[in-house]
Amino acid sequence: MENFSGWFHDILENADITDSRYPIKGMSVWRPYGFQIRRATLNIFRDLMDKEHDETLFPLLIPEAELAKEGIHVKGFEDEVYWVTHGGQTELNEKLAIRPTSETAMYPMFALWVRSHIDLPIKQYQVVNTFRYETKHTRPLIRVREITTFAEAHTVHSSTEEAAEQVETGIELYKKFFDGLGIAYLISKRPVWDKFPGAEYTMAFDTIMPDGKTLQIGTVHNLGQTFAHTFEITFENKEGNHEYAYQTCYGISDRVIAAAIAAHGDEKGLQLPPEISPKQITIIPIIFKDGGEEVMTKCNEIKDALESKGIRVQMDTRDIRPGKKFFDWELKGTPLRFELGPRDLNNNVAIIGRRDTGEKIEVSLDDNITQKVSDLLAEVEESMKANSWAKQEEKIVTLDSLDNVSDIVDEGKVVKFYWCGDEECGKAIEEETGVDILGINEEDIETDKVCPHCGKPVKHLALMAKTY
Amino acid sequence: MENFSGWFHDILENADITDSRYPIKGMSVWRPYGFQIRRATLNIFRDLMDKEHDETLFPLLIPEAELAKEGIHVKGFEDEVYWVTHGGQTELNEKLAIRPTSETAMYPMFALWVRSHIDLPIKQYQVVNTFRYETKHTRPLIRVREITTFAEAHTVHSSTEEAAEQVETGIELYKKFFDGLGIAYLISKRPVWDKFPGAEYTMAFDTIMPDGKTLQIGTVHNLGQTFAHTFEITFENKEGNHEYAYQTCYGISDRVIAAAIAAHGDEKGLQLPPEISPKQITIIPIIFKDGGEEVMTKCNEIKDALESKGIRVQMDTRDIRPGKKFFDWELKGTPLRFELGPRDLNNNVAIIGRRDTGEKIEVSLDDNITQKVSDLLAEVEESMKANSWAKQEEKIVTLDSLDNVSDIVDEGKVVKFYWCGDEECGKAIEEETGVDILGINEEDIETDKVCPHCGKPVKHLALMAKTY
Repeated sequence: MENFSGWFHDILENADITDSRYPIKGMSVWRPYGFQIRRATLNIFRDLMDKEHDETLFPLLIPEAELAKEGIHVKGFEDEVYWVTHGGQTELNEKLAIRPTSETAMYPMFALWVRSHIDLPIKQYQVVNTFRYETKHTRPLIRVREITTFAEAHTVHSSTEEAAEQVETGIELYKKFFDGLGIAYLISKRPVWDKFPGAEYTMAFDTIMPDGKTLQIGTVHNLGQTFAHTFEITFENKEGNHEYAYQTCYGISDRVIAAAIAAHGDEKGLQLPPEISPKQITIIPIIFKDGGEEVMTKCNEIKDALESKGIRVQMDTRDIRPGKKFFDWELKGTPLRFELGPRDLNNNVAIIGRRDTGEKIEVSLDDNITQKVSDLLAEVEESMKANSWAKQEEKIVTLDSLDNVSDIVDEGKVVKFYWCGDEECGKAIEEETGVDILGINEEDIETDKVCPHCGKPVKHLALMAKTY
Repeated sequence: MENFSGWFHDILENADITDSRYPIKGMSVWRPYGFQIRRATLNIFRDLMDKEHDETLFPLLIPEAELAKEGIHVKGFEDEVYWVTHGGQTELNEKLAIRPTSETAMYPMFALWVRSHIDLPIKQYQVVNTFRYETKHTRPLIRVREITTFAEAHTVHSSTEEAAEQVETGIELYKKFFDGLGIAYLISKRPVWDKFPGAEYTMAFDTIMPDGKTLQIGTVHNLGQTFAHTFEITFENKEGNHEYAYQTCYGISDRVIAAAIAAHGDEKGLQLPPEISPKQITIIPIIFKDGGEEVMTKCNEIKDALESKGIRVQMDTRDIRPGKKFFDWELKGTPLRFELGPRDLNNNVAIIGRRDTGEKIEVSLDDNITQKVSDLLAEVEESMKANSWAKQEEKIVTLDSLDNVSDIVDEGKVVKFYWCGDEECGKAIEEETGVDILGINEEDIETDKVCPHCGKPVKHLALMAKTY
């Protein structure tokens, strides 16, 4: 893909995903096809989350006094918060912030709900829209002013160990989620200057986009007791003493869908992982003057059989050339295509086409077509995932020296290097190279390498990249 | 129910539905149990809507210029709109309205999408949060400043007939939806002074709350060409001429859940229709010292069997008295309870308790328990619905004179009367009685009645009530 940025812009429009002509910069409309992808993605996400969280829903607006309570946190967001100042013609007594994220909406309520260790843990999540007054160049799904799909989890625990474990749980959960979408990712512990405002530490998922820039697609934060102190979330522990609670939060956003589109798309258009494709197979009856009825009967029979097994099927009976239909569904990224014409029917065969490999597979109509389609969908999913990971592998280079790092990332690479982890050293590296340190990717490695900047012996592999 | 208002407030808190202690008046938190009810309700709603609409999602914020375009419409909302004036520290060039409803967000986009009659009809819906700066007394789910569940459909058509038909389709759809929740309703055509700002006419669903006041739970509007003119939504018709499009919109909100709670609840707590109850049956193993293992084995067996048929089951194995468990699940409104103790097991029987009638039904363990539970759930659903309609019937009185109407509605009644339908007459009636006219409930009846206010011969039955 020569020009990813142009390709991404076009695919969103041509495949009916979003419309960015909405008259506010950085806010787009989800169109029907895009919305179906979003819905399927959220279904998978909710199935994963529901296993150990309760879904809830908190208000969009946050009183200024609550937002301002946690100083470090508000400082991180003060340039980005939209403010509501009037209700009707009336000026409000207190300005209301539109949530940029929901810590300050949720934690005053947690303080009411938590009394004793038996009220803990609390593990809740919500899927909401959040807002950031972005001054940088905006781009649908990637950098927006309305994040329409902000899925944020917030947990409260009675010990620091349990909170640390929950961070691991959050990471495992997101791994499963991204694996299901076949999106390759890099996990790193963000440098201290890039952690979530108010967090003790931040673990982040990045994916490498086709242009080599990384996109942050998920974060998991250990909040320690910072917010518990600010919002007075205390509990009576087993010993009868009052203690501040331990918290974590983690979230993903619309960017997951951007990542899925970017990870798999090609010159023909979208390639959707079977799990989130609105339809998993398109049946295209090839109808000529004669034999149309028998072909339709057989196609309907196969459609029913597939649907009875929970496969999402569509039949394209539009009165246009089959070639145009192939083109349309390749653009929309449906994983499989089933073609049947009168001659095929006479020969008792049909063709299944794979969107990912372009392969055309002849199947006998005596075969168990449902099983075949099921197997192929599983194969497609695995193959798309493997492909995404292979592409990622190709884009990572490990360097001993940072001399040419800027040129190397300009060629679309992500750099691994041994880094001491020191804040001052890291900031100097970013300053001198103009490239961001994503964070530490592998900790405590046995090595005799030294930090290429400060020369100290190091045990960590860190990541550098241009970022979205 | 002596004091509905107090009961409603308490049940929301005690059954973990919403928490209204959020620090902004008129905005509440959906708690986990309430959220599950909301989710189940939306699942039913989406299944109905998806049959003939596409789900989409439009931005929350609307530029002032767009909101202001349709004069009548904006006048209807100008006292209620929240305004965003700042992004970070920066004053915005143009104020942004938080949507009070989405006509002015959606229709500029419709104008881009509609070119020809082949682009029509468009039938879209979205489920979003909307905002109204309510100055009246707020009440969770009923009168709120953040409507967290605003499900609005918007359609565009190429003829006035098709738009009128769509209004009927919208009405049928909502009937099915409310029927599924067992909520009795009254349908009326709103008086002209009470129609949706910008609509040609408004059809409305009201339900009678336990205190006799009516709650509007759904509206369907024929918008004619008003908004099409404002937003320049035109299409080339079959004859090749440009024509303004015809539109409808219809919506429901959180109030549906308030109505379901109010329609069925009693002194013991919630009574949830099986379709929206998070769990449909609670299995309560009665464990004593002996025979516990066998009871648990049997209960698990039954749980698996029920779940395999798609019934939502929970097992309450908490180490507390069965009586406390009965109390809890009666409060939470689970339709059925299944009790099994060691003596029951010896006798090869179990008890199924119905939340709605309080009935305890002995079943043989040799019976097909799954079928029995399935049948009972259907029976409960029918019976709850019939009960709600019977209660509504009792609350409606038809009057020939409006002399005592204020006293009669104060007794918790809704009044039917023959009304001429004239605007001036209607406003005078409302003025003199202090009671609202909901609208015309039955049109063009054969009768020799006269309007009790102006004495003109009439053909319409209208409704009057105190309203929420």
